Amino acid sequence: MSEYVNSMKSLIEELKKLPGVGPKSAQRLAFHILETPERDIVSLTSAIIDAKKKIKNCSTCFNISDSDPCSICSDLARDHNTICVVEDPKDLIAIERSRSFGGVFHVLGGTISPLDGIGPDSLRIRELVSRIKDKNILEIVLAMNPTIEGDVTAIYLTKVLLPLSVKVTRIACGIPIGGDLDYADEATLTKSLEGRREINV
Amino acid sequence: MSEYVNSMKSLIEELKKLPGVGPKSAQRLAFHILETPERDIVSLTSAIIDAKKKIKNCSTCFNISDSDPCSICSDLARDHNTICVVEDPKDLIAIERSRSFGGVFHVLGGTISPLDGIGPDSLRIRELVSRIKDKNILEIVLAMNPTIEGDVTAIYLTKVLLPLSVKVTRIACGIPIGGDLDYADEATLTKSLEGRREINV
Repeated sequence: MSEYVNSMKSLIEELKKLPGVGPKSAQRLAFHILETPERDIVSLTSAIIDAKKKIKNCSTCFNISDSDPCSICSDLARDHNTICVVEDPKDLIAIERSRSFGGVFHVLGGTISPLDGIGPDSLRIRELVSRIKDKNILEIVLAMNPTIEGDVTAIYLTKVLLPLSVKVTRIACGIPIGGDLDYADEATLTKSLEGRREINV
Repeated sequence: MSEYVNSMKSLIEELKKLPGVGPKSAQRLAFHILETPERDIVSLTSAIIDAKKKIKNCSTCFNISDSDPCSICSDLARDHNTICVVEDPKDLIAIERSRSFGGVFHVLGGTISPLDGIGPDSLRIRELVSRIKDKNILEIVLAMNPTIEGDVTAIYLTKVLLPLSVKVTRIACGIPIGGDLDYADEATLTKSLEGRREINV
């Protein structure tokens, strides 16, 4: 990109650092920025700076938040005896969006993944254990993703948490609502059959 | 995205306005921004503000530039009697990168496209005509893309420019270097045969 003027070159270089943005998309984004009215660009850059400045982790559940404790941890209407453990804030938001969980959360910050050099010590497991010891926690809902790493993390957590005499559950796997058995993979069908439940009329 | 804190929500909203960025990518970019060191975010936002502030159009060729006239128009070593007409600055950069054109440029700012409401008056054709009348221009190289709109624009320009007694040429279409005839589409092969040249030994 050596033919561009300097400020364009540095803009393209900076945009290329964003995830999923290659040289061509960076160029397209840069031209978009040049063509966009000044006012809109100011709101973009100030949104970036603002988010960067205000958003921290909640010291209780480690969700991203602009207050500490976060709005979920400080909500007295929620069930503080049930903690749902998720890999990252995106998963927490997905569960919140379903409006089907009334407890509080704990964000692990990833999964155990030896190939990426992430062991149990890199996750916020110690913090989870001390939350359980300090407060009267009745149930831990494991909401790891149904991947190899998610499974390994759930098994590890179960071993760590059971001695603390707390109920440990894991969210169900199976055919998604609106899905089609014909298109479901074997692993999902197996999980779906394993997790079958009696129907009470 | 109503479950995010406000500053996260506005960041995602601002990122979603970028071309090719949907709700999921905007969320991913926002989390990337939160995880990136402050220093790198400052260089991103200042690159955006800087580019926005410094980059203008060259008043001669309408290429993007931080000086006026731009570095190409003010380069006395170039052939100022030959103007290559391109659709937009990206095409200009592509030609510059090939290092095979020593003349100057004229950026049209698009192509004639009645469906998008772009007529000849929306393009910088008047400015091209006055450049030809004012200076001693010998050749106009049309480097529109080989699309319907590019072809229409090239035909229109030829009709406008020929009465000015200037030589009008168009860059060649054909099989790309390293390409395979077997995989070339019929239109490209037709253009390639039409444009065949005698080999002089």
